[in-house]
Amino acid sequence: MPADCIPAAVAALRVVAEIEAVAAAGPGRFDVTLSFREDILSEGAGALMNVLHGNVSLKRGVRLVGFAPTPGVLAGFAGPRFGVAGLRALLGVPRRPLTATAVKPLGLDARALARLAGGYARGGLDIVKDDHGLIDPPAARFEERVARCQEAVTAANAATGGRTLYAPMIAGPLGRMEARFAFARAQGVRVAMVAPMLSGLDVVGALAARHDMALIAHPSFAGAALGEGAAGIAPEILLGTLFRMIGADVSIFPNAGGRFAFGAAECGAIAAALGAPLGGLRPALPSPAGGMTLERVGDMVAAFGRDTLLLIGGALMRHAPEPERGAAAFRAAVEAADALIP
Amino acid sequence: MPADCIPAAVAALRVVAEIEAVAAAGPGRFDVTLSFREDILSEGAGALMNVLHGNVSLKRGVRLVGFAPTPGVLAGFAGPRFGVAGLRALLGVPRRPLTATAVKPLGLDARALARLAGGYARGGLDIVKDDHGLIDPPAARFEERVARCQEAVTAANAATGGRTLYAPMIAGPLGRMEARFAFARAQGVRVAMVAPMLSGLDVVGALAARHDMALIAHPSFAGAALGEGAAGIAPEILLGTLFRMIGADVSIFPNAGGRFAFGAAECGAIAAALGAPLGGLRPALPSPAGGMTLERVGDMVAAFGRDTLLLIGGALMRHAPEPERGAAAFRAAVEAADALIP
Repeated sequence: MPADCIPAAVAALRVVAEIEAVAAAGPGRFDVTLSFREDILSEGAGALMNVLHGNVSLKRGVRLVGFAPTPGVLAGFAGPRFGVAGLRALLGVPRRPLTATAVKPLGLDARALARLAGGYARGGLDIVKDDHGLIDPPAARFEERVARCQEAVTAANAATGGRTLYAPMIAGPLGRMEARFAFARAQGVRVAMVAPMLSGLDVVGALAARHDMALIAHPSFAGAALGEGAAGIAPEILLGTLFRMIGADVSIFPNAGGRFAFGAAECGAIAAALGAPLGGLRPALPSPAGGMTLERVGDMVAAFGRDTLLLIGGALMRHAPEPERGAAAFRAAVEAADALIP
Repeated sequence: MPADCIPAAVAALRVVAEIEAVAAAGPGRFDVTLSFREDILSEGAGALMNVLHGNVSLKRGVRLVGFAPTPGVLAGFAGPRFGVAGLRALLGVPRRPLTATAVKPLGLDARALARLAGGYARGGLDIVKDDHGLIDPPAARFEERVARCQEAVTAANAATGGRTLYAPMIAGPLGRMEARFAFARAQGVRVAMVAPMLSGLDVVGALAARHDMALIAHPSFAGAALGEGAAGIAPEILLGTLFRMIGADVSIFPNAGGRFAFGAAECGAIAAALGAPLGGLRPALPSPAGGMTLERVGDMVAAFGRDTLLLIGGALMRHAPEPERGAAAFRAAVEAADALIP
C-alpha cells in the first residue's frame, strides 16, 4: 500500500515491521533483523507463516534465516503434547537413543505390512511407523492396515514384554483425516505420523490434540526449507521451531550424507531448535533419516546425543530379510553407541 | 528401499515411476518424463503432492515442470464449484473482465474497513476482498469485520442495483476456520479468500464445499512455485492446475512487472492452466495482482483476455482518497480496455 495513503492513525500503530538492524553478510547479501508488533498476528500457525514467509516467499533473494517468537506468540501454541519425556515414558525408555523404522514398500498388502511391523517390534525397535507414502493405497487401505499393524505390534509386545509403538501415517482430505485419527486412537494407537506441509500447519496439531496422540512430523513437501541459495526458509525454522510449535513430538529430517540435500550444520541446527528453550513448550526429538544405515548409528548418536529417534528404513532389510534380525542389529548398534556416551 | 529387497510380487506391480523419456534441456539439465500408476495414489491433494513433490522437494536440482493428471486422478477432485461461468452468474457480469480490490491496511478497525468496502461497491467493483493479512487481528476481529463489510456491500448494492460480492479472508486453526466459513455463509457471503499453502491443500476446498462458497486462492507461502532455478514447482502447476483441482474459482498470482518475481511467460502459463481443459473440471479465473496500477489495466486485459479478475489494491487509494472514485476509475479503465477486444 502506498505509504502516503496510510491513514495517520494507522501509521501511528506501526503495524509494519521495524528494521532493527542491517548487517553485511557477504557480497550483495545482508542480514536484516525485523521486529513485528505481536498484535498484528491472528491465531495459529497459518497466520504466523503469513507474516514470516507469506507474500515474501514469492520474491527472489529473500530468505528467512532466524525467528525469535515472543512469549506472547508462543503462548498461542501448544507445542508437543508429549515431548521428549512424555514419549520416553510411553515407550518405557528413560535414557538411550530411540529407534524407529518404517514398514514398506508401497505395494505390500496390510497383512504383509503387519508381519513386518510385528517382526520389527519383536526385534526390539521403539517405534514402527508406516512409510509416508502409505496413506490409503488400494493394496493396504488405512483401516485394515492400521488395525492389523497395531494388532501385530500389540501381540509382539505381549510376547516380549516390550513397549513398541506403531505409528500410522495419517493424511487425506479433511473429513477422512479426522476419521483416521479417531479410528487409529480407537485401535489403541498413541503416535501418528503426519506431514504438516501436505495436510496443513494448523490441522495436524488440532487433530492430535482432539485424540491425545503424539505426533511424528514428516518433511514431505517441505522444500521451502531446502536451503537453496537466497530463498525459502532455514530448515531449523520450518522443521525445527515451527513444527515443534504446531505440536510435533518428533521431527524427521533428511540427515547429512544420506539421499537428500541437507548438510551437517543444518541438521545440527534443526536438532538444536527442537530442544532449545522455547517459552513453556516441551522439547521435541530430532529424527535424522533418509538413507541412513546401521554403520552410521555411532556417528548419529555422537552428533545428536541420546535424545534422538534414529530412523533407519531400507537398510534393515538389506541387513537381513527377517525384520527381527534387522531390528536386533539396529538395537544392538544403538546400545553400543549409547555406551560410548560419557 | 534397496531394489534387491523389494519382494518379487511387489516389484512386478511397478509401483515406482516408469521413465518415459529423457531429453537434454541445456548444460547439465534434463527434462525427464515419468509416469506413475494411478492406483499408488491415495485420495486428496496432499497425497497427490506427496507423489509429485514430496520427498523430492528436499533434493537439490529437481524441479517439477509439468503435470498431466489422468482422468482417473482428476475424477477424485471436485475443482471449482462455480468456475468462470458460475462466478459471472453470481456477479451478473456475462462478458467483460472482472474487477477486484482489497480493503486494507491492517490496523484499520472493522468500521473503517466496512466504509471502504461499501465505497468500492458503490463505485462498481465486482469483488471487494479482505487483504490477506486480515485474518482475525485485534483491531478488526473476523466476525465483526465480516458482518460489517457484508452489510456495507449489501447496502451499496441496494443503492446502486449492483451485485458486488464481499470476500472475507478465511484462515486460522482448524476449528476456527470451520466456524468462520459457517459464520460468513450465515451473513450471506458467497465468496471466500483462502491461502491453500497456509491452511492446507485438502482443507480449503472441503470447507468451501460444505458451505457452498466460491473460493479465491491467495498465493501466500507458495514460494515452492517461485521459479528459482532448478528446484521447486513451476508456478502454473501449483497456482494453476493444483489450486484449480482443489477448488479455486479464482487464483491470484503476482503479475509480471509488479512487486514480485514472476515473468510474463510464467503468468501466461498460470492463466492457461486455469482455463485449459482438465477432465470435467470447470475453468477458473486468473487474477494477476501484486502492485498493479490503473495504467496497466489495458495491458492486463490484452494479456489475459476477458476471463480475468483484475486485482488492484493500493493504487486505487493513490488515485483518490474516496474509494468510490478509485473504483469508478478502475471500472472505466476495464470497460475501455474491454471495448478494444475484437
